[in-house]
Amino acid sequence: MQITVLSGGVGGARFLRGVRAWAREVHPDGAGGTTDTITAIVNTGDDMWLTGLRITPDLDSIMYTLAGANDEVRGWGRVGETERVSGELRAYGVGWPWFTLGDLDIGTHLARSSFLREGMTLSEATQRITARWDLGVTLLPVTDSEVETLVLVDGHSLVDGDSLVDGDNGIGEGTPLHFQEWWTRHRAAIPARGFVQNNVEQAVPAPGVVEAIAAADVVLVAPSNPVVSIGTVLGIPGIREALAGASAPIIGISPIINGSVVRGMADACLSAIGVETSAQAVAEHYGSRSAGGLLDAWLIDEVDAPAASPIEAAGIATSVVPLWMRDVPTSAALAGAAIAAATR
Amino acid sequence: MQITVLSGGVGGARFLRGVRAWAREVHPDGAGGTTDTITAIVNTGDDMWLTGLRITPDLDSIMYTLAGANDEVRGWGRVGETERVSGELRAYGVGWPWFTLGDLDIGTHLARSSFLREGMTLSEATQRITARWDLGVTLLPVTDSEVETLVLVDGHSLVDGDSLVDGDNGIGEGTPLHFQEWWTRHRAAIPARGFVQNNVEQAVPAPGVVEAIAAADVVLVAPSNPVVSIGTVLGIPGIREALAGASAPIIGISPIINGSVVRGMADACLSAIGVETSAQAVAEHYGSRSAGGLLDAWLIDEVDAPAASPIEAAGIATSVVPLWMRDVPTSAALAGAAIAAATR
Repeated sequence: MQITVLSGGVGGARFLRGVRAWAREVHPDGAGGTTDTITAIVNTGDDMWLTGLRITPDLDSIMYTLAGANDEVRGWGRVGETERVSGELRAYGVGWPWFTLGDLDIGTHLARSSFLREGMTLSEATQRITARWDLGVTLLPVTDSEVETLVLVDGHSLVDGDSLVDGDNGIGEGTPLHFQEWWTRHRAAIPARGFVQNNVEQAVPAPGVVEAIAAADVVLVAPSNPVVSIGTVLGIPGIREALAGASAPIIGISPIINGSVVRGMADACLSAIGVETSAQAVAEHYGSRSAGGLLDAWLIDEVDAPAASPIEAAGIATSVVPLWMRDVPTSAALAGAAIAAATR
Repeated sequence: MQITVLSGGVGGARFLRGVRAWAREVHPDGAGGTTDTITAIVNTGDDMWLTGLRITPDLDSIMYTLAGANDEVRGWGRVGETERVSGELRAYGVGWPWFTLGDLDIGTHLARSSFLREGMTLSEATQRITARWDLGVTLLPVTDSEVETLVLVDGHSLVDGDSLVDGDNGIGEGTPLHFQEWWTRHRAAIPARGFVQNNVEQAVPAPGVVEAIAAADVVLVAPSNPVVSIGTVLGIPGIREALAGASAPIIGISPIINGSVVRGMADACLSAIGVETSAQAVAEHYGSRSAGGLLDAWLIDEVDAPAASPIEAAGIATSVVPLWMRDVPTSAALAGAAIAAATR
């Protein structure tokens, strides 16, 4: 079967590892793989140019995790990482001192930047880069355009229209913060008033994205940030239309358990757009497909069982299952539950 | 006094370290420095774009050596270097596998590339990068234009005019080799038929270069490769005119001792342009300033003493001194001998 997953970074990576494990177990190909085809459509709103490097955090988090090259303890980046180059960059006064690039990670960014410099698109570069590893999942950036997410905060306003479209990250007085500055530097502690995607009106889905949605037997929405990860994916012109027209059911997994974010700072993003941090509120934010929204079905954790009825009442079939992805088996069980919900 | 030095990479770096040591000893400023001003005009023909990085080997060799951060044992690059990033690049199939970039060195290249991407010129980027260290020497790239040296070898010809000017290094069948491919990959073992400098007709000296020649009390020509280092510097339009018009004497140091190259593979370059590998032949190649050439005076090693008379006969005052730069004191003594020759 064709399993298509809309995904952000770290949470999406763990979920995709579960989907792959489930598929290899349930639909084995006899050679350690699976007869299923798994395609991840990945958020690119966190991407940026920094120190001359094109950095794509979500694509890389997924690639490293599926490759088994991720740092499980730290929760991001490469295992066995070092920071020799970053030390030099700091000594030269280049880059963002609060945004450390690991040496192994810089290898990936340099490879990508080199491919882009040669004229490849991001999806072409991603294909070249992911070919190094045996991922078992095809990674597609949602778009080849640069649609970096900017965060509107108090004291900053959208007065300099140019800074939103010139690709230089538009950071400075009177302009919005780049998502990474808000997220990584300020740990999302400055109240966000909203989010803007650079150049999004001109963006189109990358090659294969609409096709992966149209050909899907099931579309899964990973338990990623509903605003700046999944929201960014849905914000690319053409994606919502492709999802609305998909013959496959669309199943979402709540990134919220018991009113808290499983990982990351999605609550700060939800607050900014006036959505409560709860499994029910996120489901209602995505909306019922029958009412023009995204979801056919929604998975919530057992602690949130009381929310099942109101979510069902909103037109979204709801499954109550263990949501915590503690390891690969629990992640695979969650993937299986999501796919089971699709065939119900 | 203003000491201006035309220089290539490794040999030039050792010589410049000697010039600095001489100046600090003979014209001390009382604070460990010197009242002299030392300016190096540095070859950029070895520069290249590789893996999205702008690499300037001669500028970096000089900077690392003057900073005391160079690898004395290996003879190039940074001391304490590692190759974590290069390992990744190889795994991704990016770059030239025979051209290893150290991690600390990549820090320099990334800083430079980032500055260039922000719109700085190479000389502006060089000023920012060298500001990190206490060099005691101002490093000026001879030009801000990209004038990469290409090597014409048998089996390659200049049929694809575009490849010479499009800045992509023009490597491929039927085109010349990039200097680094010939030098580093092939160890100059493929006979060279000649050298071409990309875009040299459009190049102009970088800001400060002509001024450093005009203001000099002495111009020294480091014992660098006469063809692809000093030759490249002299090939930038305006440099020969500036030297011809300089009020200072121009003193060269032979890079050849007893018919051999002190370091590097300059003999392969000299052969390509039909010049014998000897102290005398290189002096005659540079030519007497009184006859429209470069040199007022020339320093040769004691083993080459018999060549003094014929070089003098060619109109170039010749000093016979120990040329081997074994350490800082012998390099400083050589610098002192060169400056003494200027005041003779």
